[in-house]
Amino acid sequence: MNESNYRMVDVGGKQVTRRRAIATGRIVVGPEVMAYLKQGELPKGDPLRLAEVAAILAAKKTPDLLPLCHPLMLDHVGLLCQLNESVEAVDVYATVVTSARTGVEMEALAAVNAALLTIWDLSKPIEAALTITNVKLLLKEGGKSGRWEHPE
Amino acid sequence: MNESNYRMVDVGGKQVTRRRAIATGRIVVGPEVMAYLKQGELPKGDPLRLAEVAAILAAKKTPDLLPLCHPLMLDHVGLLCQLNESVEAVDVYATVVTSARTGVEMEALAAVNAALLTIWDLSKPIEAALTITNVKLLLKEGGKSGRWEHPE
Amino acid sequence: MNESNYRMVDVGGKQVTRRRAIATGRIVVGPEVMAYLKQGELPKGDPLRLAEVAAILAAKKTPDLLPLCHPLMLDHVGLLCQLNESVEAVDVYATVVTSARTGVEMEALAAVNAALLTIWDLSKPIEAALTITNVKLLLKEGGKSGRWEHPE
Amino acid sequence: MNESNYRMVDVGGKQVTRRRAIATGRIVVGPEVMAYLKQGELPKGDPLRLAEVAAILAAKKTPDLLPLCHPLMLDHVGLLCQLNESVEAVDVYATVVTSARTGVEMEALAAVNAALLTIWDLSKPIEAALTITNVKLLLKEGGKSGRWEHPE
Amino acid sequence: MNESNYRMVDVGGKQVTRRRAIATGRIVVGPEVMAYLKQGELPKGDPLRLAEVAAILAAKKTPDLLPLCHPLMLDHVGLLCQLNESVEAVDVYATVVTSARTGVEMEALAAVNAALLTIWDLSKPIEAALTITNVKLLLKEGGKSGRWEHPE
Amino acid sequence: MNESNYRMVDVGGKQVTRRRAIATGRIVVGPEVMAYLKQGELPKGDPLRLAEVAAILAAKKTPDLLPLCHPLMLDHVGLLCQLNESVEAVDVYATVVTSARTGVEMEALAAVNAALLTIWDLSKPIEAALTITNVKLLLKEGGKSGRWEHPE
Repeated sequence: MNESNYRMVDVGGKQVTRRRAIATGRIVVGPEVMAYLKQGELPKGDPLRLAEVAAILAAKKTPDLLPLCHPLMLDHVGLLCQLNESVEAVDVYATVVTSARTGVEMEALAAVNAALLTIWDLSKPIEAALTITNVKLLLKEGGKSGRWEHPE
Repeated sequence: MNESNYRMVDVGGKQVTRRRAIATGRIVVGPEVMAYLKQGELPKGDPLRLAEVAAILAAKKTPDLLPLCHPLMLDHVGLLCQLNESVEAVDVYATVVTSARTGVEMEALAAVNAALLTIWDLSKPIEAALTITNVKLLLKEGGKSGRWEHPE
Repeated sequence: MNESNYRMVDVGGKQVTRRRAIATGRIVVGPEVMAYLKQGELPKGDPLRLAEVAAILAAKKTPDLLPLCHPLMLDHVGLLCQLNESVEAVDVYATVVTSARTGVEMEALAAVNAALLTIWDLSKPIEAALTITNVKLLLKEGGKSGRWEHPE
Repeated sequence: MNESNYRMVDVGGKQVTRRRAIATGRIVVGPEVMAYLKQGELPKGDPLRLAEVAAILAAKKTPDLLPLCHPLMLDHVGLLCQLNESVEAVDVYATVVTSARTGVEMEALAAVNAALLTIWDLSKPIEAALTITNVKLLLKEGGKSGRWEHPE
Repeated sequence: MNESNYRMVDVGGKQVTRRRAIATGRIVVGPEVMAYLKQGELPKGDPLRLAEVAAILAAKKTPDLLPLCHPLMLDHVGLLCQLNESVEAVDVYATVVTSARTGVEMEALAAVNAALLTIWDLSKPIEAALTITNVKLLLKEGGKSGRWEHPE
Repeated sequence: MNESNYRMVDVGGKQVTRRRAIATGRIVVGPEVMAYLKQGELPKGDPLRLAEVAAILAAKKTPDLLPLCHPLMLDHVGLLCQLNESVEAVDVYATVVTSARTGVEMEALAAVNAALLTIWDLSKPIEAALTITNVKLLLKEGGKSGRWEHPE
């Protein structure tokens, strides 16, 4: 098939191994939303607990969201949210683990993005000028290429 | 990660084994719908065949419906519907089988619920005061915790 | 077309009106889960907040879950959970509102069922012999047939 | 369970083997669309690249589209499109590969159909009297029944 | 935006009108499957009733399957299946109706294709060399461009 | 209902008006991926065309991704990608338009995020240390609160 075609690349020759990825991202929310978050709640509810749910669901939906991603069984999805008061932001960290023939970087990134958008959705009645930034892959491990950590 | 977070728990350390679950549930439909069902058809079509289809599709959608459920390959999904004339009800029984690292109780229950709601949807032009009741897990087997049967 | 066919009935001749439905259901959880719920948390997290999320998502997925249901825009979905200590149960109430040509009974019922199954999923590490019961439509209003309340 | 019931048949006793299927299909587009396609673009964009994307996504959605199909991990999905000027048509060929307990014929066919419908969607502003024809399974291999090629 | 981009074209300036489309298609099943169909059942169940369900669900999923299609409310979806013994085939006809700013041709075609693939799925244990052919739009009406019928 | 509950807020009292949102975001890809992009292609295909498709699909999936978002009909979705060589990045801009009771900010942001993740997915074989940054809402208009532009 012509190399310029879109295709889901064949991973059939790869080993089923335990693979893990961790991604992160930040939403800068400003002082007013930050004040609410320190109380643990926005008018539409606790955004961090809802972000956890959205992250787990998004990790499972990755092959539907990103056309060339393989459908995968996932062993674990978790999200950690941290208030970062010095920059009036929330930092999120998603971990995804699978036992599969290909990695879960995109699943971890999709989880991070869904979590950040969920926090956005609950924050926007208070502040419209939000910013998502600093979305990065921190770690991937498992598979032939071995462990990789973000250089920073 | 904080124990109060929502997360998809890590099943990576569990064995892939054949696991099976059977769930049941009842919809009480009243005399008028029951009379139709004994003829095998409601005005909108045969509800029991449609319930079988809805049950199979719902079992496959479980990880999308229930946020903390793992995406799983399913080996088998089947639904049995029985008219229970003495209580003017339909009893449904769903069986789900997988070869996976976690069980399929929620898949069997999701299948039961979708089947009962489908019967509801076709019965409601005739009777609005329907009731779903008696939704239970009857059996689970496979995996470390072994076979469990409902005590009743 | 043959009347025994499955089909999505034509609602094109109906008026777009505000329509509302309220449904309820109960999950009997037993003493051990009840003790946890009175503390507000199960080992896998707060089941009631998660049930709210699952209910909203399920209401939106109704046309995908129930084959003959019409795709609808929804104006509002909300879920109320109440601990019912005397029967060691959680009672849930879902309200769905639309501005559409057909009602939202099935959306309210799908929300109730997803909420109850979510509570089940978080309760099952503690108690396997759970029961869903008492799933009913309490109210529908809007449209030509007017207001209907459950006779009980 | 009664043999006339719809069910997802139990494949738990089958071996996990590498399985492959190739399907094909044709859309006859007529002279005006053909002239555009020879330039590589329709007014709404390049239909063949979009068809590749739709095919990959459809292969992944097969268990959701076809009620009795098993959810499967897919190792590879690819689509090849060929202009067939002599009949003013586009021929598409989809290849799907899995490592699973059941084959991927329906996934390959779902990919072909989604590709053809996507070309249709982009061609219809120019020509409404399009035709899909010649949708066939060309090859399946892997599993107990071995290799099968279309007799033509 | 550059005209060669993929985009969902803006239909905001069009009128909401009642729009209808009818599409057709054929699956050639051969003598052995035809003999079963005349009895009304294949070993995996009645394929025509299941095709109706798959068609309705597929019409609702069209915006998810075909990237550039608009999400639409649907007023009606129905499928008619006819055995065509002289060519050992099943002919299907799907009707879709909406009240919207754009037409439902692709929804009708998606319904036809899902119906034909469903019949294929149930027929393939008996006959692998099946063919889908003759998929056409027969009618569209409603909207500025008015009524169109297939010229044949 | 208790104000701390998650719910889809009732928009039934709002007017159906034309509403538009524009969002933006950036992926910093580094020199090696940038060199490929200037040729128009990565080894897995043209990422910008694929990003357009992912953006349109993600806008339609927003109510499924973000739990509290309303299901909406969309009149238009489009994506513009610009290579930003001075910072070795791709900037994307998504526009979403609806005629509805609530706005489409989250749809535009979901489109931006899916586009950026798609570019990531195709760039990662070349460079793992990618960064998404600068995701912002630029404009929203329509509805009671009127036109809002990002202050920068």
